[in-house]
Parts: sequence; structure tokens; C-alpha cells
Amino acid sequence: MRNPQLNGDGELQHLLTLEGLPAPVIDRILDTALPFVSIAERDVKKVPLLRGKTVFNLFFENSTRTRTTFEIAAKRLSADVINLNIGVSSTSKGETLLDTIDNLVAMNADMFVVRHAQSGAAHLIAQHLSATERPHIHVINAGDGRHAHPTQGLLDLFTIRHYKKEFHGLTVAIVGDLLHSRVARSLIHGLTTLGTTEVRVIGPQTLLPAAVESMGVRVFHDMRAGLGGADVVVMLRLQSERMKGALLPSAGEYFKHYGLTVEKLALAKPDAIVMHPGPMNRGVEIDSAVADGAHSVILPQVTFGIAVRMAVMSMLAAN
Amino acid sequence: MRNPQLNGDGELQHLLTLEGLPAPVIDRILDTALPFVSIAERDVKKVPLLRGKTVFNLFFENSTRTRTTFEIAAKRLSADVINLNIGVSSTSKGETLLDTIDNLVAMNADMFVVRHAQSGAAHLIAQHLSATERPHIHVINAGDGRHAHPTQGLLDLFTIRHYKKEFHGLTVAIVGDLLHSRVARSLIHGLTTLGTTEVRVIGPQTLLPAAVESMGVRVFHDMRAGLGGADVVVMLRLQSERMKGALLPSAGEYFKHYGLTVEKLALAKPDAIVMHPGPMNRGVEIDSAVADGAHSVILPQVTFGIAVRMAVMSMLAAN
Amino acid sequence: MRNPQLNGDGELQHLLTLEGLPAPVIDRILDTALPFVSIAERDVKKVPLLRGKTVFNLFFENSTRTRTTFEIAAKRLSADVINLNIGVSSTSKGETLLDTIDNLVAMNADMFVVRHAQSGAAHLIAQHLSATERPHIHVINAGDGRHAHPTQGLLDLFTIRHYKKEFHGLTVAIVGDLLHSRVARSLIHGLTTLGTTEVRVIGPQTLLPAAVESMGVRVFHDMRAGLGGADVVVMLRLQSERMKGALLPSAGEYFKHYGLTVEKLALAKPDAIVMHPGPMNRGVEIDSAVADGAHSVILPQVTFGIAVRMAVMSMLAAN
Repeated sequence: MRNPQLNGDGELQHLLTLEGLPAPVIDRILDTALPFVSIAERDVKKVPLLRGKTVFNLFFENSTRTRTTFEIAAKRLSADVINLNIGVSSTSKGETLLDTIDNLVAMNADMFVVRHAQSGAAHLIAQHLSATERPHIHVINAGDGRHAHPTQGLLDLFTIRHYKKEFHGLTVAIVGDLLHSRVARSLIHGLTTLGTTEVRVIGPQTLLPAAVESMGVRVFHDMRAGLGGADVVVMLRLQSERMKGALLPSAGEYFKHYGLTVEKLALAKPDAIVMHPGPMNRGVEIDSAVADGAHSVILPQVTFGIAVRMAVMSMLAAN
Repeated sequence: MRNPQLNGDGELQHLLTLEGLPAPVIDRILDTALPFVSIAERDVKKVPLLRGKTVFNLFFENSTRTRTTFEIAAKRLSADVINLNIGVSSTSKGETLLDTIDNLVAMNADMFVVRHAQSGAAHLIAQHLSATERPHIHVINAGDGRHAHPTQGLLDLFTIRHYKKEFHGLTVAIVGDLLHSRVARSLIHGLTTLGTTEVRVIGPQTLLPAAVESMGVRVFHDMRAGLGGADVVVMLRLQSERMKGALLPSAGEYFKHYGLTVEKLALAKPDAIVMHPGPMNRGVEIDSAVADGAHSVILPQVTFGIAVRMAVMSMLAAN
Repeated sequence: MRNPQLNGDGELQHLLTLEGLPAPVIDRILDTALPFVSIAERDVKKVPLLRGKTVFNLFFENSTRTRTTFEIAAKRLSADVINLNIGVSSTSKGETLLDTIDNLVAMNADMFVVRHAQSGAAHLIAQHLSATERPHIHVINAGDGRHAHPTQGLLDLFTIRHYKKEFHGLTVAIVGDLLHSRVARSLIHGLTTLGTTEVRVIGPQTLLPAAVESMGVRVFHDMRAGLGGADVVVMLRLQSERMKGALLPSAGEYFKHYGLTVEKLALAKPDAIVMHPGPMNRGVEIDSAVADGAHSVILPQVTFGIAVRMAVMSMLAAN
């Protein structure tokens, strides 16, 4: 069975997940993103690679931040961008997801950026486009349920490569609520594919997926032990709704055990970098002294995120 | 009294309704739309006909789908598009409709695309622009109350002409909730103007306007009788809110009598086409086997809808 | 201490308030706006001055009207515009204002147009950009609390200069709810800076700020006395929520005392102009006969508002 993300020539057809995406394809995306970083520093931050293309931001789940990054990326590529907040639109009129897609395809859509609360939504759309033989239309998963958030994973990989040059020899520690984190899942798949020496996950039992070891990671419940000698520390956002249920005692208690402080960070390598997908809960999963400190590469992540999304969009449009 | 939609030279000044629009004007719109269909298939789907023009999508009633089609059309014509969801804006601050219009005119608006729950809203705006002598500003009615939805009517006409070549000799059957349908009203006016041999309306007494025969149509309450020998079958959306009141017994009962099935469609001509303005209620007014079947031209309608809107906008901007 | 709005060369770095902005800078903005008025009358209303720049409309407080004017101005300058209604976005996820700004800066923002219910929000952002040494990013205050609305003040000044040529010798009367009006504050600062001979404020004690005289204005509680011999009459919008509390008896009572009628306007100079920032409450602070009458320049204000905003944006981008 062919990888649904690749076309017959092994080129990127859709970006749905980093799971199973071959290392050379990931490398090519990261290489392609490189020049886009400098385009964003130019006086005129615009290239005509997607001129006359129509990109739909299909957000079935609200996320202004992620929508904005894709909107900027598409506009800097000169695409026409249509934002659709579908929660309040046709599907509320009883139209099915695939009817909505068929309609937008009939409007000569070129690309769908899809955010959905249900895992597999972007896959379903890609599958439907393939079944109905429309290979010129591309899908980017901008986050589906707890499943995947591949552009976030790619920007994390880009950031790590930028600061650490190669993945071999690295120890990466991912800390926090992995259970609900599509960001963490995508990053772990990318890291293992690119040959990272050790990927660690750190968190309380209640916030780790059941068989997380099967993803090729080492599990730590004690943060201090897990951070020892790490090159990269990735802090995950703790959704405030998690603290309401039985999963966690309180924000203060969580911070004490799994919040990143200067003191705990000192256990990692002296040149360790600190990452966070944002938006941060200062004082919950990360202390301000770390978030704004010398090790933090949280804002460069955002910058690289635009470049990575421009890279993915331009590669898809070219294939 | 001059037709408010035409200027002194008999050219399109506004598009408010298909009622009273002369056949040559309708023909010219459909002819103009033809090349826009192929532009949408190009690699760069963009022409500079509205470059530097400001188009306002004034949606006093929410409709993401219709707003999107106009936004795409205007952007492919290179216009600057401003979406205004007026329900949550100035009018809620007590400003009158015409004060809002005067303000946008003062911002050098070129075109208003107006959707409003009240019949006559677009007319009122066009009249006001005329009374205040601003002939360079154009209004397109994107649906007003139960009155008219002329671009939908035009795309329906374009679709029929595309598949059936001419209107003379055709039997067109329109099925369902005609009482609440501005789509049906606009289509009927267009069909009769272009010389369609027979226009039939099919529906229960409770969903047909009182004196519908005066529009030049033949009335059927029995769907099977009405479909006999039809060249074109237009299914109308049944608003779910209709089923709550006393008008209809239930969705299942409605489907039994007025839902289009393969079996009922067999009563129409063998090469009959099936149309629907969308979004469809599968299993209520139309069976999926028909919606996705060989006779369905529902998705081509959407494609032609963009071309027709580009045609109308470019004609207005040129006049 | 340097004026935070000016850079080392005394050029406009941010536009935060008209208070303390030197007369030559104000004059330069008004002069720059002049050619933009004629651009808006051209067939192609677009210049490439902000091509490839990313402008963020950050509206923490909803205002479709003001957002629209900035969106139009930015698009006519060829900028990429991103509208962010922040009330429903990241800050609701617990992110701080400055984290949001840092993120958008990391996306290579060029300009922020900021509307916020709290006074000082735009200043805070400008200060933060300065403290973190990002001089190439500019902030425009689009209204902060009761504090300032400088582009509205500038368009008012532009309008007065357009009709009255110079400020020396003029008597300007501002009528109504000055207590809650950032529009009035900005205008008063501009008028006094440009050497207006007499600025009068007219309103009931309850709607005038405590020490309003310290702004260099003459106070009148009797509207007839205050209008005597005025060259310019500026009517302020009366927020309907003011009438609910103890501040005012009723809309009818307010109109009787402080509503502008043809009869009251006759007390001003014969060639007096009437202004209003919009949206108007007809029959509350202004009679329709005046709003639509020969003295009214309310709609030209809107037109000039686009030109003034284009001028400010293009000057900031050039500095």
C-alpha cells in the first residue's frame, strides 16, 4: 500500500502526519524552508510561487494562532486565501464534511489547510480527493484531534537542526501532557525518523499515553532525572481544562513537579535549548525566567514556523 | 419608468433580480461567463479586471457559502475584498442601513454584494445610490428575504444552457419548497424570459406560493406526474425549520412524496439533468444515489457559479 | 526624555496620541494625506508603498467600522493585512498581551494597528518594541479606552484645514459627551497644537471631564451660548449606554438641550461646518436636517479618514 502522502514519484502530495514520512522527504522540507527564513527578513516579503492559487483555511476547530501562521505563509506566497470557520457554516446546515469539500473543489480550490477536533479528518479528505481522482488538490493537516500536527512537528525539527546541526548524538526531552498532545506525537515521529539518539518523555503517569514506549521513547516520571544531560527540552502546554478533572491536583502542584525552572534546567547540558509550541502558561509549565532566558528558542520557533509552512505549501503546489 | 438595473445605454448597472431583466442582457451575462470557466482551470486563476477596485461583501444575514463564492470571484478578478458581517457591526449601534452605505461609499467603494433577510434591501441601496447620483457604484443582490437570488438563478440558467444548448423545447421541473425559495423565484423568471417551453413546479399545497400559476408555470402536487418527460429536474433545499411547524408532517414523509429517488427520476427523460442549489439534505429532498449519480450536475453548478459571478462583476465594473 | 512616538531623527516612529506630537509632524501627516485623497478617486486605487509588508489589525475591542478603514487603507497601499479579533483568541487561552505581540513580531510583522478597551495598551506595545530593540516595527493606536484616537483626530484636523484653510482665527465648538470621548481628547490636543484661536467644549457637567479647562478649552453648559460665532461644530456620539445610568435623564431631554438642530446651528457662523465621528444617533445628538444639510461635512470626513490612515502608514513604513 502506497503512503497516501506521497505521489507516484515519491513526492509530497499531502502533509497529513510525520508518522511514516521518509527521512529524505522530511529533510527536503527542512532544506526548502531555509531560504524562506531570509525572504521573511527582506523588505518585500513576498514571492509569486502560489500566485493565482486559492488556499482554503478550513478551521472546524477555532485556532486564531495557527490559522494566522498559515494565512501569512500563503499570502507571502501570493496565494488568494479564504478563511472558513466551518463551525458556524454549512455543516451546521446539515451538510456533510465531504459535501463541503466537494463544493470547494468545484470552486477550483488548490489547497486545503484543515484543522479539526476529530483525529483523521485531514486523512479522510485526502482519501476522498484521491478516490475521486483530483491529484492537483493538496491537503495540509493543521491539527486533527489528538493525532497529529505535522507542520508544528516540522518547525520543531527545523529549530533543533538550526541550533544543533544534526540529530545523531542528541538527547531530546519532551515534558508534560503527552496524552493530549498532537504536537508531541508529531515531534516524536519526526525525531525517531531522523535518527535522534534518545527521545525522552517526562510526565506523570496520568498524562502519558498507555503504551508510549512503543513509540521508541524512554519514559521518566521524575523530571530531574529526565532532564539530565538533555540537549533539547520541549515543554508542552498544559490545557487548563486538564486541571479541572481528576488528572491533576492543581497548577501549583504541577509546576512544582513538572514546571521548568532555571534550577531544573541546570541539570540539562549547558548549551541546551528550550522549546515550547505556545501559547505558554507562564508559572504553570514554564517559569518566566526560563521562557525569556538565554536558552529559550521559543520565538525563533515561531519565525521558523512561517518558513516551514511556506516550504510545505510551495512543494505541494509544485508537485 | 426605466429598469433600475440598467443604465441609460441599456447596460447592466446593478443586478437585483432576474424579474424584468431583458433576455439579451441575460444572454450577454451567460456569454461573458463562458471564458471565466476556463480561467478557473488555468494555473494562474487571476485576471486584473477589478484591480484597485474595492468590493464590499455586506452580509446582514450569515451565509458563509454564498459569501465565499463572491469572495473567490472578486479575488480572481484582483479586487480588494472587504467582508462585513453587519449583524454584529454598526447597525447594532443604531446606525441606519443607508448611513452605513453612505459611509462605505465615502470610503470609495466600487461594488456592494448585499445579502439581507429582508426583501428589497438591495433595491433600496441601488435606489439610494441613484437618488444621490453615484452611477459608478454597483450593487449585486446576493439574496434578499424570499424575493430574489439572481446570481443563483443565472448559474442555474448557465448550467441548463451548458447541458441542453437551448431553452426552447425544454421542460424544467422545480420540486419542493417554492414558498420560501428566492432561488426558485429567480430561476422561474429567468427560464420564462429565455423562452423555456414548459416550467413546472411540484410540491405540496403548503409549500407553494398562493398564485404561483401567475408566474407562468404548471403546478403539480404529484411528483411522479410532474417529472414525466422532464429535461431538467431542480430540487430545492428543505429548510429543517419548515418541518417543525404545521407545514410538514416529517422528513421521512416528505422524502416519500417529494424526495428524488432513482426510481422517480426514471420518469424524466433518459438524458435529464438533476440540479440542486445546495447545501443538500441527503435523504430529505434527494437520495444520495441521485445526488452522486450520472444525471447530477450539482457540482458543475458550483463551478459555473464562480464564473457567472465573475462575469457579472466584470460587466458592472466596465459599465 | 524622548517622545516615544518619534525616532532619533524626529520622524514618526509610532502614532499613539496627538498629545505632545509637534505641530510640524502633524502638518507633515496632513500634507502627506493630500495626494492620497486623489488616489482614492482613480480607476485603480492602489499604490505599492507597503507591498510585501504585513499589517496586523489587532482588535481587542470590536469595531468593524474602524477596522474596515484601516483594512482599506492598508490594502490600497498593497500590504498583506491580517485581521485578528483577539477577544476570542490567544489571550483567552491565558497568554499575555506582550506574549501575543512577541509571537506576531516573530512572524515578521511590520505594523500593528491596535484597538483596546484599556487606555495605554498601544503605548505599552510601543514601549515593549523599543525595550526589545525592534525599531522597524510600528504601532498605530486605533483607539485605547477613553484616552486617544489619533487617526480620528488627524482626519478631523484634515477636514477642518480642507474647509477653513488655517487654524489661526478659528473658533471650534465640540459638543456632547466629552467625558467618555477619546475622539474629543485627540482633537483638542491637535487643535491647540496647531494654534486654533478658540476651542470650546459644550455639554452638561456630568459629561465633561473634571478639569477640562486645563486642556486649554472654554467650557459652556448652554449650547446656544457655546455655538455663537463658531466656525466649526463637532458633534460627539452619545453612547446609548450612558442614558441608562444616572448621567442623563433621557434621549429626548438630551436632544432638547444638546442636540444640533437647524435653529441652533443658525447661531454659528453662516459658513460653519458640522462634523461628527460617526456612527450618528439621528434625533439624539443631531437632527437629520443638519446631518444631511449643506453645512455637514460628515461624509467627507470618512473619505479623508482613509487618506489620513494611508498617509500615517506610508510615513511609518518609510521611517
